Amino acid sequence: MEKGRTELRNVGEFGLIDRIRHVVDFRADDATLHENLRLGIGDDTAAFRPTPGKLQLLTTDAMVEGIHFDLTFTSLRHLGWKAIVSNISDIAAMQGTPRYATVVVSLPRKISVEMVEELYRGIAFACQKYACLVVGGDTTTTFGNMAVAVAMTGEVEENAMVSRSGAEVGDMLCVTGQLGAAHAGLKILLREKERFSKAANPEDHAPNLEPYKATLERYFMPKPRLDLSRVFAEKVKIHAMIDISDGLASEVYHLCTASHAGAEVWEHNLPVENTTRSVAAEFSESVYDYALYGGEEYELLFAIGDEDFKKLERVTGDVTAVGRIVDKDKGINLVRENGKHEALREKGWDHFGGG
Amino acid sequence: MEKGRTELRNVGEFGLIDRIRHVVDFRADDATLHENLRLGIGDDTAAFRPTPGKLQLLTTDAMVEGIHFDLTFTSLRHLGWKAIVSNISDIAAMQGTPRYATVVVSLPRKISVEMVEELYRGIAFACQKYACLVVGGDTTTTFGNMAVAVAMTGEVEENAMVSRSGAEVGDMLCVTGQLGAAHAGLKILLREKERFSKAANPEDHAPNLEPYKATLERYFMPKPRLDLSRVFAEKVKIHAMIDISDGLASEVYHLCTASHAGAEVWEHNLPVENTTRSVAAEFSESVYDYALYGGEEYELLFAIGDEDFKKLERVTGDVTAVGRIVDKDKGINLVRENGKHEALREKGWDHFGGG
Repeated sequence: MEKGRTELRNVGEFGLIDRIRHVVDFRADDATLHENLRLGIGDDTAAFRPTPGKLQLLTTDAMVEGIHFDLTFTSLRHLGWKAIVSNISDIAAMQGTPRYATVVVSLPRKISVEMVEELYRGIAFACQKYACLVVGGDTTTTFGNMAVAVAMTGEVEENAMVSRSGAEVGDMLCVTGQLGAAHAGLKILLREKERFSKAANPEDHAPNLEPYKATLERYFMPKPRLDLSRVFAEKVKIHAMIDISDGLASEVYHLCTASHAGAEVWEHNLPVENTTRSVAAEFSESVYDYALYGGEEYELLFAIGDEDFKKLERVTGDVTAVGRIVDKDKGINLVRENGKHEALREKGWDHFGGG
Repeated sequence: MEKGRTELRNVGEFGLIDRIRHVVDFRADDATLHENLRLGIGDDTAAFRPTPGKLQLLTTDAMVEGIHFDLTFTSLRHLGWKAIVSNISDIAAMQGTPRYATVVVSLPRKISVEMVEELYRGIAFACQKYACLVVGGDTTTTFGNMAVAVAMTGEVEENAMVSRSGAEVGDMLCVTGQLGAAHAGLKILLREKERFSKAANPEDHAPNLEPYKATLERYFMPKPRLDLSRVFAEKVKIHAMIDISDGLASEVYHLCTASHAGAEVWEHNLPVENTTRSVAAEFSESVYDYALYGGEEYELLFAIGDEDFKKLERVTGDVTAVGRIVDKDKGINLVRENGKHEALREKGWDHFGGG
């Protein structure tokens, strides 16, 4: 179905803001989000009542076209979803609850009003799912690439907050969920994009993505682990936690640096699904590299005492011990399947390709 | 003096963040900013204790190269200043106090580490001046233009908060400060840029900016009106307020729309400095157009009762009555110096050139 295309200049900035406001105007399950909001979209600032006694959390994450997303295979709705969940994931890592968000979009000429609405449908969908309200933002044109930057507040009880810095020698090092699937999904998409661009007659090239559906979903719609973060807060005492959106290996470094500790990571324990294994095999690559160095996964990495880890295993099957916190002097090592120790590569998604 | 140039890829994302952290690490005059901050730069989110009983404010403003700034004549330090004060201005418009900020930067290859440090020096300078702390952010490369997006929290007593929507028929419509100077400064800069690019031998072209120093400063280092916003909170009851960063005329429309009111604006009362007048004369343009439609001014537009306005005039010489709130049916009109009424053009800085 051919859809209408409305140019941004035909509705103007304030016309666009009206359309956006309409798309993000939903009723959240958590009624206190609405009750405590004194001013939302449409004033110089948003204003809300914080929950008495709780800490306020503040985080921000940006996504830039060509760096974080490729519009040739990422729909604007998925982009909106990701822009929100990457921030929710940060709040989950503190054991907090998301509350209010602002959204900045920079829009090149190729983006139509309908495309912006699609973006905000993805934003609204994620916000509704995880109980967060869009309360403001900024819209601007750009001569460069499209970009989305979300800032989000959250709340947490002061004694429930978990930072990166509390890991103790002897702690189990654990992750939630299964690793490497988002990276596997991206590999498939990039391969199909290349095949398409090299096809003699691109119109005849029908990408066969069906067998990879589950893997692609992990790339397009990653889930932040608010669910498990809440289980943790209720059941156990987490010592340190971080989300692994930039890749597991680099986040092990961040957690250990902040905690003045070392770690060993057990390669053979890294949780990977069979679908991810088979994609890695297709590319003749190591699935453990996907798990260690693949980005865009919104699982949590955490350090926890042995007793609490056992307690956790009794309530959820979705956490895995992947290593142990050791003395700082021992460094940060990967223990291979064959038992060999080697320094863990401090690699991950570095936006400046530095090191 | 030739300065060293360090490429971003040589320090990497986390090396850059360390440098930024160093630049923004100052001691604020308001010690509670530090005391209430539980986590700053370097964790998944920042965390802070809100002041009990106060509302939290949240705002965001983005600046994109080629749209909001031109690096051929804007220094990165001035850019950093503006990125912060544009948000502080929004908080001043609510009669609030700024507290904590996050900064997102998208950096093309031409930007060096030293340039990023310059940007953050401007950010730190503005934050220190207006008592606000940088507590987090995100850094990314881009293949497009440079961009800076700041999100900022503030606080305000619930009964002191002023929105856009409380203007009452009969209220005086007032502005702080003097108008049109930032626009005059931009005119001068664009003229010099054009002269430079057209010069037979550009290296010989020495721009003569000396006579315009005061006007240029108004463009490069606009001051948010936290000072007056605090006087207002103490002395009078403001009915509605908005900052005029997108131009006075469009903000009169926003304030009136939110308040379901009309307005008349008295052209001959618009406060303009002689230096602005003479720039407008140089360009054979109306200084009132600069005052009404020029952007990037961080003064405040507000509606206030007559008695309170008189009270205000006794404590500050820096507010001017520029019109009156009237019934919605009467519309929004400009009263010319010659007494003629005409509809005020709903113009301002619309990023999409729409309308």
